Amino acid sequence: MKKPFYVANFVLGAFLSAIVALPASAGVFWPEKWWPSKWGPDDEKGSFNTITPKKIMSSLKIVKTGKLYRLGRPYTNDMPKFGNRTYSLHIPGLPVGGPLGDNQIVWNDEFIVGELGQVGTQFDGPAHVGIRGKDGVDRYYNGRELNSSENTYGFKKNGVEKLGPCITRGVLIDVAGLKGVDSLKKGEVVTPEDIEACIKKAGIAPIQEGDAVIFHTGWGKYWKEPATYNAGCPGIGLAAAKYLIQKNVSMLAADTWPVDVIPGEDPKGAFDIHNLMQTVHGIWYLENLDDVPMKQMAKDKVYEFLWIFVPVPFAGATGSPGDAIAIK
Amino acid sequence: MKKPFYVANFVLGAFLSAIVALPASAGVFWPEKWWPSKWGPDDEKGSFNTITPKKIMSSLKIVKTGKLYRLGRPYTNDMPKFGNRTYSLHIPGLPVGGPLGDNQIVWNDEFIVGELGQVGTQFDGPAHVGIRGKDGVDRYYNGRELNSSENTYGFKKNGVEKLGPCITRGVLIDVAGLKGVDSLKKGEVVTPEDIEACIKKAGIAPIQEGDAVIFHTGWGKYWKEPATYNAGCPGIGLAAAKYLIQKNVSMLAADTWPVDVIPGEDPKGAFDIHNLMQTVHGIWYLENLDDVPMKQMAKDKVYEFLWIFVPVPFAGATGSPGDAIAIK
Amino acid sequence: MKKPFYVANFVLGAFLSAIVALPASAGVFWPEKWWPSKWGPDDEKGSFNTITPKKIMSSLKIVKTGKLYRLGRPYTNDMPKFGNRTYSLHIPGLPVGGPLGDNQIVWNDEFIVGELGQVGTQFDGPAHVGIRGKDGVDRYYNGRELNSSENTYGFKKNGVEKLGPCITRGVLIDVAGLKGVDSLKKGEVVTPEDIEACIKKAGIAPIQEGDAVIFHTGWGKYWKEPATYNAGCPGIGLAAAKYLIQKNVSMLAADTWPVDVIPGEDPKGAFDIHNLMQTVHGIWYLENLDDVPMKQMAKDKVYEFLWIFVPVPFAGATGSPGDAIAIK
Amino acid sequence: MKKPFYVANFVLGAFLSAIVALPASAGVFWPEKWWPSKWGPDDEKGSFNTITPKKIMSSLKIVKTGKLYRLGRPYTNDMPKFGNRTYSLHIPGLPVGGPLGDNQIVWNDEFIVGELGQVGTQFDGPAHVGIRGKDGVDRYYNGRELNSSENTYGFKKNGVEKLGPCITRGVLIDVAGLKGVDSLKKGEVVTPEDIEACIKKAGIAPIQEGDAVIFHTGWGKYWKEPATYNAGCPGIGLAAAKYLIQKNVSMLAADTWPVDVIPGEDPKGAFDIHNLMQTVHGIWYLENLDDVPMKQMAKDKVYEFLWIFVPVPFAGATGSPGDAIAIK
Repeated sequence: MKKPFYVANFVLGAFLSAIVALPASAGVFWPEKWWPSKWGPDDEKGSFNTITPKKIMSSLKIVKTGKLYRLGRPYTNDMPKFGNRTYSLHIPGLPVGGPLGDNQIVWNDEFIVGELGQVGTQFDGPAHVGIRGKDGVDRYYNGRELNSSENTYGFKKNGVEKLGPCITRGVLIDVAGLKGVDSLKKGEVVTPEDIEACIKKAGIAPIQEGDAVIFHTGWGKYWKEPATYNAGCPGIGLAAAKYLIQKNVSMLAADTWPVDVIPGEDPKGAFDIHNLMQTVHGIWYLENLDDVPMKQMAKDKVYEFLWIFVPVPFAGATGSPGDAIAIK
Repeated sequence: MKKPFYVANFVLGAFLSAIVALPASAGVFWPEKWWPSKWGPDDEKGSFNTITPKKIMSSLKIVKTGKLYRLGRPYTNDMPKFGNRTYSLHIPGLPVGGPLGDNQIVWNDEFIVGELGQVGTQFDGPAHVGIRGKDGVDRYYNGRELNSSENTYGFKKNGVEKLGPCITRGVLIDVAGLKGVDSLKKGEVVTPEDIEACIKKAGIAPIQEGDAVIFHTGWGKYWKEPATYNAGCPGIGLAAAKYLIQKNVSMLAADTWPVDVIPGEDPKGAFDIHNLMQTVHGIWYLENLDDVPMKQMAKDKVYEFLWIFVPVPFAGATGSPGDAIAIK
Repeated sequence: MKKPFYVANFVLGAFLSAIVALPASAGVFWPEKWWPSKWGPDDEKGSFNTITPKKIMSSLKIVKTGKLYRLGRPYTNDMPKFGNRTYSLHIPGLPVGGPLGDNQIVWNDEFIVGELGQVGTQFDGPAHVGIRGKDGVDRYYNGRELNSSENTYGFKKNGVEKLGPCITRGVLIDVAGLKGVDSLKKGEVVTPEDIEACIKKAGIAPIQEGDAVIFHTGWGKYWKEPATYNAGCPGIGLAAAKYLIQKNVSMLAADTWPVDVIPGEDPKGAFDIHNLMQTVHGIWYLENLDDVPMKQMAKDKVYEFLWIFVPVPFAGATGSPGDAIAIK
Repeated sequence: MKKPFYVANFVLGAFLSAIVALPASAGVFWPEKWWPSKWGPDDEKGSFNTITPKKIMSSLKIVKTGKLYRLGRPYTNDMPKFGNRTYSLHIPGLPVGGPLGDNQIVWNDEFIVGELGQVGTQFDGPAHVGIRGKDGVDRYYNGRELNSSENTYGFKKNGVEKLGPCITRGVLIDVAGLKGVDSLKKGEVVTPEDIEACIKKAGIAPIQEGDAVIFHTGWGKYWKEPATYNAGCPGIGLAAAKYLIQKNVSMLAADTWPVDVIPGEDPKGAFDIHNLMQTVHGIWYLENLDDVPMKQMAKDKVYEFLWIFVPVPFAGATGSPGDAIAIK
């Protein structure tokens, strides 16, 4: 197997070198034909189907004071980026146009380039990760096949614009707080037991169908050190993944770049929890949250809250940028 | 005065030709020194200061069923664009990366380029429109001067990432419904009397401090005909602008590209209501909303609702893309 | 067969609608296994192999006065573009940086986005057009297979940076002049007889190995009318293509967007001459030349000249922008 | 004076920190009113005016064998970039389009973003560097004032598309060879005496009007170590600059990023030689040449040659990418 080109361009850590040396063969934890989804063969929304009017109504009732936390990070030219990805914002012209009229209006806009659904605080939607089958076909959520050229200018199916907002009950799983550390370590696995202990410590109701589950691992402290930040992280492993699938959550989020633990538990897997959760089970992720407001929430004992994330409906996109809001 | 370059590139309609022939002199409706803002000289939030915990609490109480409307438009390569602006999304590689590991993961991202805060459904923030003073200085919200090169890679002050979300009471001002038309006409002025008649007809409480005011003019029906859509539109005039300033609203939105009426009432002005509302009074706009869900809301008699708009915190940007959510 | 998406976005003329309705089956004019190239299985240069030191030496001797013609077009935001392609240039900041030092330097750069090898005056290199075989594999010059993801950030093989410059004898084939018209018509075929009549009329030596053959069809006059310009054009047909293959030319160029006649002679083919010349025979094209200097050259009786085209070595690109120079 | 923002983003080395701490006051080596240029107030070509038919004719006569050297570097995503600049190339779709027709054509293009005239091997044209006068006005070549917004989408005057090609006698000034070193050191000044010694050693005729002067400093060896490469370099100082102005050269080029020595001789200056040569005297630069072919040329004793550089005519651009060709 050839070394993927980006290894030369980007230090993802030793775990990838290991991965790519492995034969593509063995033990994945899903059936060979893992589609259609439980929401039927035409579904493009996956876990966001749990965001029902009833769920919205009950989540609004959680709010007691109207205090608001912003968990998204600002997008900057120097933020950590994965692989060959790009982000650049600049202001043309200064001003772009004008002055016009007696009022002498002048105006600006901003030119932005980059993989905008997959840089900074980023949402992984249905077209992001897929699985190459033994038949050589790349399949995404609900078994949709990758048709090249037909999707050059955006995915006709599984685009992020199909999802709508996630407005629901959010729960903060403060694993760093539970373990009394600033940050969990690279490769440290978050387990179902950790999740339950956090909930118990927080004194909130268990995870319910449609909840957004937000992990505070503390790893966000390395945001300003891109090489360290991207070299791995703590996160959920297979047991927690299965636990959360059973809970029918609407989305996962964390102060890390993949939510999952990296290096993964299985040395032969590569982002295998991503495939399990997103591709097979249609559970969407929000990555690279800011850890600072999470710490404040823990300090304020805000473990249960109204959670708002609204994907930008870029037609045919795999993901979305955006701020994430918690209100208590 | 020189013809501004973009007239050659883009048909904005005859009104601009008229505008640019005028001397920069006369009757604007704000004092010569219009800053600092009423929120103090350091403020970067303007009308979003009205989004208080108390306001959030009261707006949540409006929701009765959890039914949700999405008013943002999907972003597509062929949407109407103003002037020389660009929007292009495509998927590199197909897939971008992989396969890796036993699970044979493959993945995609999307490369997007364009003036992302000022194309499609777009939010105008504090760094968007300014006024060139008689001293030749360009000033933006709160009198901030345009320092070239210092802001090349994003505005240090007035960037949209400073704002936070707008979660508040929304009111739908269904002017098209009031007048019994599919769409108001190009240049047709929406007045304070229209606004009050809409509220009375809707049977809702008057506009209150911090409300988001959403106009349904019907003009959105021309979205698929960019030349028509951009050639002008109905919208608020000076009287309605003053009325809304007095109401201390948090934001305005409409199914048109500028919210304001175009051509404007004053033939010597150029987007002068933009300057009055945004630059001088710090009231932010959301433009290019979708008229179809507005019609549905009118049909469902949803004139008062929970309004959610969360700007993407692109650091130093003048605006933001994003979906806009109404919940009843 | 599905309608390719770009038909909805762009008027390519009725000929494409016809093409896409056809079954993929019949009469192409190359063998089923058309690789390796005559320059061996490792070659990445194709027709540029004819640019030898000896050829360069003889071409320099053509120059008699040093008079220079520029045949490339300036790149502008409003030039005609094919399909969904983009081109946008703007200047960030104004100035981008400074002032610094006692000398108070300020500086600018330009931000450009787009399919830069395939907009405006554009050079088609070895990675541009391929053929999908009956085995479903996409093959490019010299039979190189399209490996997705490995080439996401540029082609490892067949990239335009491998070619080097084309400095050779150029011949102007003034078909418009021969026929006494301003421009040939859409779909009008240029034949070997036309080429030979042009050469005879010009009084120059026949086409020789390594020559660059430049066609003046007059179609360039529609450059400012993108819909007309892109709806088809005159150009070479199958007979001329075969004739030029036999002559071992180094490159072809024309004042049209594809050099080939469009609609093509075979209603079942789609840019089939492109495939024959470029994919199968490795003969590179330069498209969208300016017709105005061509007319001047004809007036000056400059039919034979030193030809200079230097591709920009964008690593892994399919093509290149650039000016094209003729010197007599 | 404020610290320019990019210092925070990019390590340019200690010399910039020094520069920015200085008051903007003293000793620059050009008159306060340094325009119009010697080619008249309407000129936009500067030193390229020396490229006359006669000069072209004499330069062609230098060629003896047709052997060709390519001195431009391939453009890659990981090349060293100055400040906040960006370069990214990727291939959408793979393939972008097709298959169509019986021939089953598929095709690709490349999407490129970045400051394309000012990344990699880059040509500095008339709109690139300017001087802020005591009156606060930014002036570029020939005294042209920076009018903001009028030039947002490209400079109306001084754009690189006005220049045409540089086809002339090239001379290689092998300073590394002269000094018997792999590379000159950071901050090491190239003097007129060095230049004359190189010419004498090479056994070629002196620098003549219209010549392109190419410096081999050896600094190009650090290309793969961006931090070292960009932290400074050897290059011409004030004396050599004055010497070259007197020689009426057509352009300068080097295997460094600015051609000039950095840190400069005057601790109060910032790229002051750039201003002297480009802004005041209209002499254009080609930067970031490849040192490897230069070494080969020295080995082959190719010190005098036909030089070809053809700027890409991006309308309104400050510079251009492109390959540079030497033929002996």
